[in-house]
Amino acid sequence: MPALRTALLQSSGRLGDVAGNLKILDEAAGRAAAAGAGVLLAPELFLTGYAIGADIARLAEPSDGPSADAVAALAARHGLAIGYGYPERDTERHGVIYNAAQLFGPDGASLIRYRKTHLFGGFEAEWFTPGDTGVAQAELGGLTVGMMICYDVEFPENVRAQALAGTDLLLVPTALMHPAEIVPDAVVPVRAFENQLYIAYANRTGPEGDFEFVGRSTLAGPDGTARVRAGQGEDLLFGDVDPAALAASRALNPYLADRRPGLYGPLTAP
Amino acid sequence: MPALRTALLQSSGRLGDVAGNLKILDEAAGRAAAAGAGVLLAPELFLTGYAIGADIARLAEPSDGPSADAVAALAARHGLAIGYGYPERDTERHGVIYNAAQLFGPDGASLIRYRKTHLFGGFEAEWFTPGDTGVAQAELGGLTVGMMICYDVEFPENVRAQALAGTDLLLVPTALMHPAEIVPDAVVPVRAFENQLYIAYANRTGPEGDFEFVGRSTLAGPDGTARVRAGQGEDLLFGDVDPAALAASRALNPYLADRRPGLYGPLTAP
Repeated sequence: MPALRTALLQSSGRLGDVAGNLKILDEAAGRAAAAGAGVLLAPELFLTGYAIGADIARLAEPSDGPSADAVAALAARHGLAIGYGYPERDTERHGVIYNAAQLFGPDGASLIRYRKTHLFGGFEAEWFTPGDTGVAQAELGGLTVGMMICYDVEFPENVRAQALAGTDLLLVPTALMHPAEIVPDAVVPVRAFENQLYIAYANRTGPEGDFEFVGRSTLAGPDGTARVRAGQGEDLLFGDVDPAALAASRALNPYLADRRPGLYGPLTAP
Repeated sequence: MPALRTALLQSSGRLGDVAGNLKILDEAAGRAAAAGAGVLLAPELFLTGYAIGADIARLAEPSDGPSADAVAALAARHGLAIGYGYPERDTERHGVIYNAAQLFGPDGASLIRYRKTHLFGGFEAEWFTPGDTGVAQAELGGLTVGMMICYDVEFPENVRAQALAGTDLLLVPTALMHPAEIVPDAVVPVRAFENQLYIAYANRTGPEGDFEFVGRSTLAGPDGTARVRAGQGEDLLFGDVDPAALAASRALNPYLADRRPGLYGPLTAP
């Protein structure tokens, strides 16, 4: 099976300018497709911006709203999968907003719709309702791809659940702030190692409202190294998710087979 | 509450020479006590050696056998807690051997008796029966201290269970081999960070039978840094476990409070 070239878009886009951000995504998708990428990942809340206060609620759309349609069309036009973060409005309870992510396939079909389950800090608690579904997955290019958002990946339980469900590549749109550089630098690579999968972690960058996003977008491999890591500036990075390397690493590191789930009961206690 | 000075003994001792290893432990305990340490941690299977084949079974003793009595006496004489690894013979089924660890308090009382639950590789599978008890804990110097062995700490579930039970300092005797340097260098510090506790990880060092132990013993703090880290040679290292730093770090990193155990069911599925 060929490797899946993965493109990470490190950008904060234009705050509150959905049309402008779709344009940035279009341009990045074109470059990614030209470089042979099969998937492009944009950061958390990329469509709208993160630190935009009440505009989060105003700009939120359903998972099949017009902006989603526009991303689907970009994916189909460029012929690669696109994952991205956006604020999702609940279709029935209109006041309910989720910090969401979606993955469109290279034919424009929606493959994954995910709502962040572990909200971070006061800003997110104010605006978002947490999701209630753990593992979100789809098949892409012969690989099982999963998705979660930012803080979710810092909880070992979440990534373990993805691994147990067979995820090969975990897509993580993020909005990671100073001084949490340890997350891309150490936590994400260790998650990839302890679960024997790849993790693509695409971050925002630069100052935004009260926040200072740190970039450092990373593609971590099952050997626990950063195959690719960005600096602080805007960037479009490429790395390969290699099924052969994954299989070889899993044979050397049988963590999933060596687990003893009968001892892990305390982890699910309310 | 004062910090608990923790001493890590990085040594492979003398293979198969229990009396010689008790002497090394005595000398290290004297130096540790003189340096103000409240606890000394020796590596996995320190009393006997690791790569000693069938001698593992011949030298195994019950948890209250003569070698345990000797360590208890050392702890009481030097007035500090001592944790160490040894092969434990089951008192009823004499053919059953555990890869075990014990912690004696500064009065010589046995505080923790633990049997490795996650055995590593073919050598351990051949000689040892895995333990069936997850969290092992005790109070020491105002802190809650837990214990596990080597490979156990590589499973995020095990350390999470310790954290949920309130562990402040996790003692991990280990026998970590090349090329798994990622474990002391990255996995152990990330475990300390994601669970907001200290981890003392005391390793063997140098070649031993088919194995090459790598040293790199580490005291990792809740900020995810190695407060102390050894090189490859024999060493006695000191680091402080600081309750004030622990409380401050926990206030900044509310991982345990932000968990959603209702989503973690897959982790306990058989």
